Amino acid sequence: MTTFGESHGPALGAVIDGCPARVRLELPQVQASLDRRRPGASALASPRREPDSAELLSGVFEGQTLGTPIAFVVWNRDARPSDYDSLAAADRPGHADAVWRARFGHRDHRGGGRTSGRETVGRVLGGAVADAFLTQALPELRVVAWVAQVGAVICPPVLQTVTRAQVDAAVARCPDAPTAAIMGSLIAQAREAHDSLGGAIDVRIAGLPVGLGEPVFGKLKATLAAGFASIGAVTGVTWGLPDVARAVAAPGSKFHTSPRAYGGIQGGLSNGEPIEARVYFKPPASIGELARSGRHDPCIAPRAVPVVEAMASLCLADLLLASRAWPPPS
Amino acid sequence: MTTFGESHGPALGAVIDGCPARVRLELPQVQASLDRRRPGASALASPRREPDSAELLSGVFEGQTLGTPIAFVVWNRDARPSDYDSLAAADRPGHADAVWRARFGHRDHRGGGRTSGRETVGRVLGGAVADAFLTQALPELRVVAWVAQVGAVICPPVLQTVTRAQVDAAVARCPDAPTAAIMGSLIAQAREAHDSLGGAIDVRIAGLPVGLGEPVFGKLKATLAAGFASIGAVTGVTWGLPDVARAVAAPGSKFHTSPRAYGGIQGGLSNGEPIEARVYFKPPASIGELARSGRHDPCIAPRAVPVVEAMASLCLADLLLASRAWPPPS
Amino acid sequence: MTTFGESHGPALGAVIDGCPARVRLELPQVQASLDRRRPGASALASPRREPDSAELLSGVFEGQTLGTPIAFVVWNRDARPSDYDSLAAADRPGHADAVWRARFGHRDHRGGGRTSGRETVGRVLGGAVADAFLTQALPELRVVAWVAQVGAVICPPVLQTVTRAQVDAAVARCPDAPTAAIMGSLIAQAREAHDSLGGAIDVRIAGLPVGLGEPVFGKLKATLAAGFASIGAVTGVTWGLPDVARAVAAPGSKFHTSPRAYGGIQGGLSNGEPIEARVYFKPPASIGELARSGRHDPCIAPRAVPVVEAMASLCLADLLLASRAWPPPS
Amino acid sequence: MTTFGESHGPALGAVIDGCPARVRLELPQVQASLDRRRPGASALASPRREPDSAELLSGVFEGQTLGTPIAFVVWNRDARPSDYDSLAAADRPGHADAVWRARFGHRDHRGGGRTSGRETVGRVLGGAVADAFLTQALPELRVVAWVAQVGAVICPPVLQTVTRAQVDAAVARCPDAPTAAIMGSLIAQAREAHDSLGGAIDVRIAGLPVGLGEPVFGKLKATLAAGFASIGAVTGVTWGLPDVARAVAAPGSKFHTSPRAYGGIQGGLSNGEPIEARVYFKPPASIGELARSGRHDPCIAPRAVPVVEAMASLCLADLLLASRAWPPPS
Repeated sequence: MTTFGESHGPALGAVIDGCPARVRLELPQVQASLDRRRPGASALASPRREPDSAELLSGVFEGQTLGTPIAFVVWNRDARPSDYDSLAAADRPGHADAVWRARFGHRDHRGGGRTSGRETVGRVLGGAVADAFLTQALPELRVVAWVAQVGAVICPPVLQTVTRAQVDAAVARCPDAPTAAIMGSLIAQAREAHDSLGGAIDVRIAGLPVGLGEPVFGKLKATLAAGFASIGAVTGVTWGLPDVARAVAAPGSKFHTSPRAYGGIQGGLSNGEPIEARVYFKPPASIGELARSGRHDPCIAPRAVPVVEAMASLCLADLLLASRAWPPPS
Repeated sequence: MTTFGESHGPALGAVIDGCPARVRLELPQVQASLDRRRPGASALASPRREPDSAELLSGVFEGQTLGTPIAFVVWNRDARPSDYDSLAAADRPGHADAVWRARFGHRDHRGGGRTSGRETVGRVLGGAVADAFLTQALPELRVVAWVAQVGAVICPPVLQTVTRAQVDAAVARCPDAPTAAIMGSLIAQAREAHDSLGGAIDVRIAGLPVGLGEPVFGKLKATLAAGFASIGAVTGVTWGLPDVARAVAAPGSKFHTSPRAYGGIQGGLSNGEPIEARVYFKPPASIGELARSGRHDPCIAPRAVPVVEAMASLCLADLLLASRAWPPPS
Repeated sequence: MTTFGESHGPALGAVIDGCPARVRLELPQVQASLDRRRPGASALASPRREPDSAELLSGVFEGQTLGTPIAFVVWNRDARPSDYDSLAAADRPGHADAVWRARFGHRDHRGGGRTSGRETVGRVLGGAVADAFLTQALPELRVVAWVAQVGAVICPPVLQTVTRAQVDAAVARCPDAPTAAIMGSLIAQAREAHDSLGGAIDVRIAGLPVGLGEPVFGKLKATLAAGFASIGAVTGVTWGLPDVARAVAAPGSKFHTSPRAYGGIQGGLSNGEPIEARVYFKPPASIGELARSGRHDPCIAPRAVPVVEAMASLCLADLLLASRAWPPPS
Repeated sequence: MTTFGESHGPALGAVIDGCPARVRLELPQVQASLDRRRPGASALASPRREPDSAELLSGVFEGQTLGTPIAFVVWNRDARPSDYDSLAAADRPGHADAVWRARFGHRDHRGGGRTSGRETVGRVLGGAVADAFLTQALPELRVVAWVAQVGAVICPPVLQTVTRAQVDAAVARCPDAPTAAIMGSLIAQAREAHDSLGGAIDVRIAGLPVGLGEPVFGKLKATLAAGFASIGAVTGVTWGLPDVARAVAAPGSKFHTSPRAYGGIQGGLSNGEPIEARVYFKPPASIGELARSGRHDPCIAPRAVPVVEAMASLCLADLLLASRAWPPPS
């Protein structure tokens, strides 16, 4: 996948190459994925109205992929560069503005350019294609993420049967109702205080065949780590038992008898059990005065749930395609 | 870098392509790096005697790199497949044996094949070349790792000035002497009890120029995450403030004023401050009966310190070379 | 570069990633490149009217590249799938229809899909960006291609000073006027006879620094060969002295004293002299009845000139960026 | 595949990653491939005695591949750097010495370093592994190359049934006996005159499934072109009808009815017919005084036959593995 687009340029989009032919793919599926990352998808998120609408440019004909590159464009209809004019002069504290200028010799002051969370539109477009392929290739596969931590509030273990629909229906995308209620009020307080909150997302991948990944540098955990850590604001990725500092404090005799210890990965390869990872997010940098202007989320985790799922699906689709090359010749 | 070799096959090695010409590189430097990962380098580690000796096959002439691929071989002189004969029949619990068989249609019972920690010989060879290049290209750069956690014992913050030599001289490669003493006795107890211990390694990268990395998928943290998570037994990678679950529990107003919050990375790019990451390791799976046969470490962290440094250097060398393509044409 | 789009789908386009920031790039430059590949650019070419209009989606701000991916879209305004309805049932002889069906399990009968020459729109978009970068980075560089053969008519050696403007102004894009006149009437005759003609394009690259390319697998000639041979209908690529069968018939004592023998490449690297290559094209497969329906060129060479130049520029831009990583650290 | 080694350094070798497990591979097969590229394999070739002996370092156990990287080393036992001492001071005319110095800031005067034909040892090692995989995966596949031109002497069409054994047994590796006799005496004359000869190799690939390759940039012909053009001294690659300048001179009505017109490739993909390509070689640059010192071949084509086959097999193995990812999910 290649993505493109700045937060306040003409458009964003993605080109997905290498998807096999004859995968059923209709625009409404893709649009539904985009809608899940919209701010409006949750009462707790940024009030920016982005009626993001995916347009299909190539690669699909009569509801099926052609095997050629699949390109989408999403026009930045709601871009309001003028909102950011006051920011043109000064670098915003906590943002990457100064670093970006050192790297590129300029800074796109129109809301962060490619460093803005808007770039995740491209990830979600790609994730929708990956999901379409995976659904057809591995009907048993389930990739589900949810909010596991907001500030200091941590979600208790979640049922193996939790679905994306249940997560989306929950406050703060946390499927444990009592925890979700606390998270919801924490976020509301932070918004009012022009402060922000960190958090974590848990992702569970069930139904994967045994042996995906490569044994040394391309370990499944390395591939997923790169995918998750490529999301802005992510500050840690861990596998298996949650709260990694505590998990590795247990002696081997206890660790290796814990049911979720391996997080579904051994020797770098999927072992057939559900893969479980936790992805940590920093509190957003837009606080105080910065949080008054522009349109910002006090906690990124609820909106990032479909982005984490998209990155998981993209990685898995690649690994599944690669896995087809393994079987020894007869 | 491409590495090769099974733990009990004829040899291991690495080929490093893309290193510029005229980097000063002598075999003793490489051998010194290899010696640092040897079990014998610490009284606390596995008693396997591996007189690993690097042989240079190509790419260096008269003490300087030629710009051609640099190849090393390390012969497996101490391989004792017979030690493992009793293991030929049964998959070892906690090991990747069953997964490997599902993937490759066979299992190399000679001590783990490519899933063995022996494969890190190749990483250390590559890291030595990367270090030689980085030392010459960025004389200010310092890449130093140390043991930050063994079991439940956590090392307090370490001086910015700590050196590899100080770390190597410390018990359990933990530069805080009182903590190191406790770690040392924990490891000795675990060995006696045929149990094992998890842990964590901190790595600090100081002296890097601003702007390394790519803004979206190739973020510096994603590159390093893939590098670290590709090491066997790694179960988590976090940036910036340690104990990530606690770090993200702080509100933004507190988080963004903490000195080490960003871990040296903003917008996916190096920001000129020291990069700080923590890499978590599972307790080894060889416990109980398995720990009696073969030659195993009760805690992997002290030996993994040079491996974490090698992966950091390899990633940084790639990123530094890539960064040379940035400057706008005048 | 990633390109996308089928000949009769909604749109074609290209995403160019890795272009440095602050390259001057205005849409009219890109449009001018597109206009050069239009059928209307020559009285001898296919009468299909494609008012191809490039739209810029990302990566450029205030006339300069941002360092982020540059995306273009070209809408297929003139697509007339109904022209091809009669072809829906039968595979066209000489075309890739049957092969495509074997590969993808379907055939996009709307004029060839990605096998159509329409896909070269993407190459020309990318070539325009590469040219913008190269112009700024290597002001001395000249990449010029022209028609060197149509049917059995071969152009005599062309002046080193020939320019793109002179080539574009010439009949059949052959800068030797008497030869061009014969080529022009040959093409007109072939059109009338519903027959087709093969040909060749010469490309000359002057002003390149010494040493571009990699010494073994990534030789400059291998990179250019892959670029040129990726163009549809290309059936051969040769370097240095034209008419390769005759050139290699000379003994070494004569060959190595010929002025153009090496084609500007030695040991796989540019040697500072002009690079000269000849790219051969098959006669188009649309002959007889097929040439009556649809809109086809009897000889592809004149229209392919800007495509060959685009592929050269894309390869050179990549190689020039890669070359910045060479210099030994001081 | 990654290869390494300079012509007069300690060793050459290759690492082949991505070969599936359980491919039958014994060292004697590999050694037999190496022996075919030896100078001693033909009375017409360079008198340098290289008892090249392949040693297997990893990736094979009990006669089968493990699925891990397969590494070989070949020691440079016959390196005689002193032969080249007189060349240390001066760049050799026609060689890449000056270009190499410009690129790498030095020149390895020990016989050409990586620009020497010695580097093809690595290609042949890799080709042997690719052949082992292809033989098992596609028992019908035949990859056979032979000398089609030496100087101005061109071989007439060769039977579809020609085998590698027949080619190896023929003078100058030309399977047409009368032509071979003339080629043989031409080469002997050139050796005596300290002159050199160009030539061409034909390669035929029969038994390939339909649809290999990618439709746009990764066309099968582009992949093979890059593979063949990466061989030193190659100055042209053409597909289908030989003598490309003459072939494209035919009108489409004649061209498209010729039996070998497409060279087995349509729309960039294999079409199920034999793939036929011609690879042209320059006369070697070691002529006159240079041809007296050192050990040189007056015509490279006969020795290059197994190298061309190796590059074909390496490309095909990659394409066949990639093709396994195509099938649409059911």
